Amino acid sequence: MPGPVLAVDIGGTKFAVAVVGPDGVVRTAGRIATPPGGDARILWKTLDELITSVAGDSPVAGVGIGCGGPMSWPEGSVSPLNMPGWRDFPLRERLARRFPGVPVRIHNDAVCLAAAEHWRGAGRGSANMLGMVVSTGVGGGLILGGRLIDGGSGNAGHIGHIIVDPDGPPCGCGGRGCLEAIARGPGLAAWAVEQGWVPGGVGSGGAERSGRAEGADEAGDDAPGSGAFAGTSGVAPAYVEAAPANGRQLALDAAAGDPIALSAMHRAGRALGLAIASATHLCDLDVVTVGGGLSQAGPLLFDPLEETLRAHARMDFARRVRVVPASLGQEAGLVGAAALILAADHYWSPRE
Amino acid sequence: MPGPVLAVDIGGTKFAVAVVGPDGVVRTAGRIATPPGGDARILWKTLDELITSVAGDSPVAGVGIGCGGPMSWPEGSVSPLNMPGWRDFPLRERLARRFPGVPVRIHNDAVCLAAAEHWRGAGRGSANMLGMVVSTGVGGGLILGGRLIDGGSGNAGHIGHIIVDPDGPPCGCGGRGCLEAIARGPGLAAWAVEQGWVPGGVGSGGAERSGRAEGADEAGDDAPGSGAFAGTSGVAPAYVEAAPANGRQLALDAAAGDPIALSAMHRAGRALGLAIASATHLCDLDVVTVGGGLSQAGPLLFDPLEETLRAHARMDFARRVRVVPASLGQEAGLVGAAALILAADHYWSPRE
Repeated sequence: MPGPVLAVDIGGTKFAVAVVGPDGVVRTAGRIATPPGGDARILWKTLDELITSVAGDSPVAGVGIGCGGPMSWPEGSVSPLNMPGWRDFPLRERLARRFPGVPVRIHNDAVCLAAAEHWRGAGRGSANMLGMVVSTGVGGGLILGGRLIDGGSGNAGHIGHIIVDPDGPPCGCGGRGCLEAIARGPGLAAWAVEQGWVPGGVGSGGAERSGRAEGADEAGDDAPGSGAFAGTSGVAPAYVEAAPANGRQLALDAAAGDPIALSAMHRAGRALGLAIASATHLCDLDVVTVGGGLSQAGPLLFDPLEETLRAHARMDFARRVRVVPASLGQEAGLVGAAALILAADHYWSPRE
Repeated sequence: MPGPVLAVDIGGTKFAVAVVGPDGVVRTAGRIATPPGGDARILWKTLDELITSVAGDSPVAGVGIGCGGPMSWPEGSVSPLNMPGWRDFPLRERLARRFPGVPVRIHNDAVCLAAAEHWRGAGRGSANMLGMVVSTGVGGGLILGGRLIDGGSGNAGHIGHIIVDPDGPPCGCGGRGCLEAIARGPGLAAWAVEQGWVPGGVGSGGAERSGRAEGADEAGDDAPGSGAFAGTSGVAPAYVEAAPANGRQLALDAAAGDPIALSAMHRAGRALGLAIASATHLCDLDVVTVGGGLSQAGPLLFDPLEETLRAHARMDFARRVRVVPASLGQEAGLVGAAALILAADHYWSPRE
C-alpha cells in the first residue's frame, strides 16, 4: 500500500490541494480563489505556495491532478477554457519537476469527478457508470467494465455534447443542439430570462436567496451571471444584493415556485433524460451520477429527467439504469485526482 | 497458438458456419437459409447438420457464436427478434454439450461484426472504434482502449438507439426518434413510399434492378418489403419482377437518380451523422465502420452523413474521427464469432 498522495484540483473559480491517504480520505486540504487576470507565472506561483502550505515537506507517493480542459493528454499541457492565462501550460511537467521520482498524472476535471463517484461515491460497486456534472458546462466521465475509459485522446466522457435537439441552440463547441447548449447553467438562465424570468423575483425578495449554497457546488464554477436587480419596488433597497441570473439561482427560484424557473428545470431535465437514454443504449450503463450546481434542484430536475429517460429507454437492458445524485460534494475533484494514483488499476491506463 | 475454431453465425435469413484458422482466415464454410416457421427443434437440427457438413469430425479449439438479440449473456439463451421459434433457447449450452472441453462463447451478431472489422477489417489498428451495421435494424459494437466493451449486460453498442429526433417516429424498441427508427431499411423505405416512391420506377424499368447484389449484404437480413409492381405501363409484363420496397432497392434507385430515393438517403445520412457525432463525443472514437445493405449506397449515403457529422463534431478531438465503409463483406459475422476465441484478449472479458 503506497503512502499518502498529493491531489490537485484546478478550476476557473478556485485551486484546491489536499493530502489524501491511501484509503482515499482527505487528510489536509486547502483552497484559494483562482487569481484573476491572466498571468501564467502568478497562477503557477499561487498553486506552488498553496501546495507548500498544505503538504509542507512531507513525502508523497504520487501526484494526481484534475484540471479543466482542453489539454494534451496524458502529457498534461493545459489550456483551461476559464483560465486564459494558461495556454499550453505544461502543468503536469511542472509538478513532475517539483515532485521528482514519483508518478504525476493528470486528467480532465469532470473525468476526475466521475472517477471519485465510482471509487468512493454514489457509483461505488457498479462496473458501468457515467459520472456527470451539470454546472457552467456539462461534463462527464465514463467507467466501463470497471475501468475509466479514456478514448483516443483522453476526451471520452463528453456527455455534454450528445446532440439532443439537432435544430437547437448553437453550442460553445461550434455545433448545435448539444445537451450542454441547453442544460448548462448560463444557457438555461439565458433561456429563462428570455421567457421573462426575474432572478430572485419570487416570494419576499431576492436577498435571502442570493447567497451561494456553500459546499454544494462540486464543480465550483457556476458563472456569476448578469445580476439583475431583484427588488419588486421601484428602487431596490441598498441592502438587497442582486440575485444572479445563473443556474443555481434558477434552481432556488424553481424551488420557490417560480413558473418560468420550473419550466427551465423541465427543459434541462428533458435534455438530460434524452442524453442519458442515448448514453445508456450505447454503453449499457448500470448507473449515472449527476452532480454540479443544477443538480441541487433535486426532484424539480430529476423528475422530468426520469420521465423523459423512461419514455425513451424501453428495452430491458436499458431499463436497468439508475440515475442518482452525486454524493461526494466539494471534495470529489480531489478524491478523483488522488484515484489516478491510489487506484490506478481502475483509473489510469496510459503507459508512462 | 490454438488450432482452428468453429464459427457460427445465426440470423433470421441464414445460418452460416465455418472453420476458421488461428490467423482469422476462413478455411471451409457453409450456409443455409433459416428454416421458415417456428419449430425450435427443426432450427437446431438444421444447425447441427450444417455443422457436421462443414466441420466433420475435426477437433476444434473452441466455438464462437454470433446471434441476433436479445439474449441472456454470457449464458447465451437466445430469443432472436426475427426467429420466433427460439425463445430462451439455450444455444450456447447446446453447442457446449456438442463440443465438450473447449470454450464456447456467444455475442450479439452486430457486436461480432464490429469485432471482425476491428480485428481484420476497416478498423484494424484503431484502439477506439464503433462498428455499425445499417440493415433491417441498425446495430453496432464498441471497442474502446483496444478491448470490446460489453456493458453491464452484454448490450453495449446499441448505436441504433441513440436518439436523433426526440419527437421523431416511434421505434421498435418502444421509444421514439431513435436512429434505427429513421435509418433502418424498412423504416426508410416506408418513409419513401409515403413520399410517393415507386420502387424500381426510375429509368428503363424495375427488372434489372430487382436482383439482390449477392455477397454485399453483410447482415444478410434486409426484409423483402412489400414488393410493389414497378412497371410504368398499365399492366406489368409478366417477366418484370416486382422491385421490393426495401433499403437496398432504395439505394439502387437513389443511384439511378430517383429524387425521393435521394431524399431518403439524405434523411438516413443525416440521422447517422448525428448519432455518430454523439457517439464520438461520448467515447472519443478514432474510427467508425459502417456496413450493411444501406451502406452499399456509397457516397449517396456517406456524403450527407459526413456533412452532418462535420457540422456537429467541431471540437479538435472529435474532428479526428473517420467514417469508413466496413470491408469484410459477408464473412464478417463468422470472423467476428471466431475472434471471441482466437483473439480473446481483445474481444472476450467475462469470466467462465
